[in-house]
Amino acid sequence: MKKQLEVRLSGAGGQGLILAGIILAEAALYDEKNAIQSQSYGPEARGGSSRAEVIISDNEIHYPKVISPNVLVSLTQDSYNKYKGELAEDAILIVDETVEVEADIKHTVYQLPLLEIARVELRPVVANIVTLGAFQRITGCVSYESLETAVLDRVPKGTEELNKQALAAGHKAAGDLLAR
Amino acid sequence: MKKQLEVRLSGAGGQGLILAGIILAEAALYDEKNAIQSQSYGPEARGGSSRAEVIISDNEIHYPKVISPNVLVSLTQDSYNKYKGELAEDAILIVDETVEVEADIKHTVYQLPLLEIARVELRPVVANIVTLGAFQRITGCVSYESLETAVLDRVPKGTEELNKQALAAGHKAAGDLLAR
Repeated sequence: MKKQLEVRLSGAGGQGLILAGIILAEAALYDEKNAIQSQSYGPEARGGSSRAEVIISDNEIHYPKVISPNVLVSLTQDSYNKYKGELAEDAILIVDETVEVEADIKHTVYQLPLLEIARVELRPVVANIVTLGAFQRITGCVSYESLETAVLDRVPKGTEELNKQALAAGHKAAGDLLAR
Repeated sequence: MKKQLEVRLSGAGGQGLILAGIILAEAALYDEKNAIQSQSYGPEARGGSSRAEVIISDNEIHYPKVISPNVLVSLTQDSYNKYKGELAEDAILIVDETVEVEADIKHTVYQLPLLEIARVELRPVVANIVTLGAFQRITGCVSYESLETAVLDRVPKGTEELNKQALAAGHKAAGDLLAR
């Protein structure tokens, strides 16, 4: 992994992306890295799309704002359209398979049925955790073990097993895609 | 209120301060303001104290990191000791009454039984929401109505009434203190 990774998680309000960002940052902490997690609320947040940002670094983080994400996660077409223009040159995209991506896009794109896995195999509400599982498998920027610990720390009591399965399902789906 | 307010919420891990920060930022959004909410995870986050930061502004926010808070909230002695040195000159302090504050401190200090109100009148877990109620009454930097809406949006289903009472209880305690 690069020494510093800027991640933007985007989708619709209610998809749990702020929680996903917090979990990701806390997983980085367990991995002895530094992290900053943030949300901005301004005119652009009033449209119904939601985003959370995480910077993960082996070193101290000097500028705490994501400028050009190295990883953009988009669960909806709207959020993809909104943020696709701001990516770093070598960025990767992790998008739900319902998101249409330009055929000539220069970035590496991973399209996965994240929402469907949650809805069909588990519960819609864990799409954010499915997404984190896929994110971990693709980027490797936090360890699976730390991520699972952070998930179990943060999800509501009584939903631990569901969320553990969600994380594993996202991880597996990404692994299957990478193996193709 | 000042055009830009930097708020640091500090306490022990598990006191729900990250959620409080998110709720406060979302309340600012309802008030048509801009806000950035963030957490940093680094060596200093490994000690057991927790902090969340919120910047609320009438205008666009240029530098997204809290440097010298205008408001420091501390629910524990440890977190007070850690952050008291970094305040803006005209800062105000909102602390739990169990926190010992230097007699010669230059800042305006509001000491309130935030943890006790939650524990005795409600449930310990809502101390963060009690704190937000007091914060609103003292600073006025978001409207009570927006704050209540943001609280009800974010708390677990089935706990809405409890959290509504918690917000009102903190608000009332601060009002009583101000009226003395």
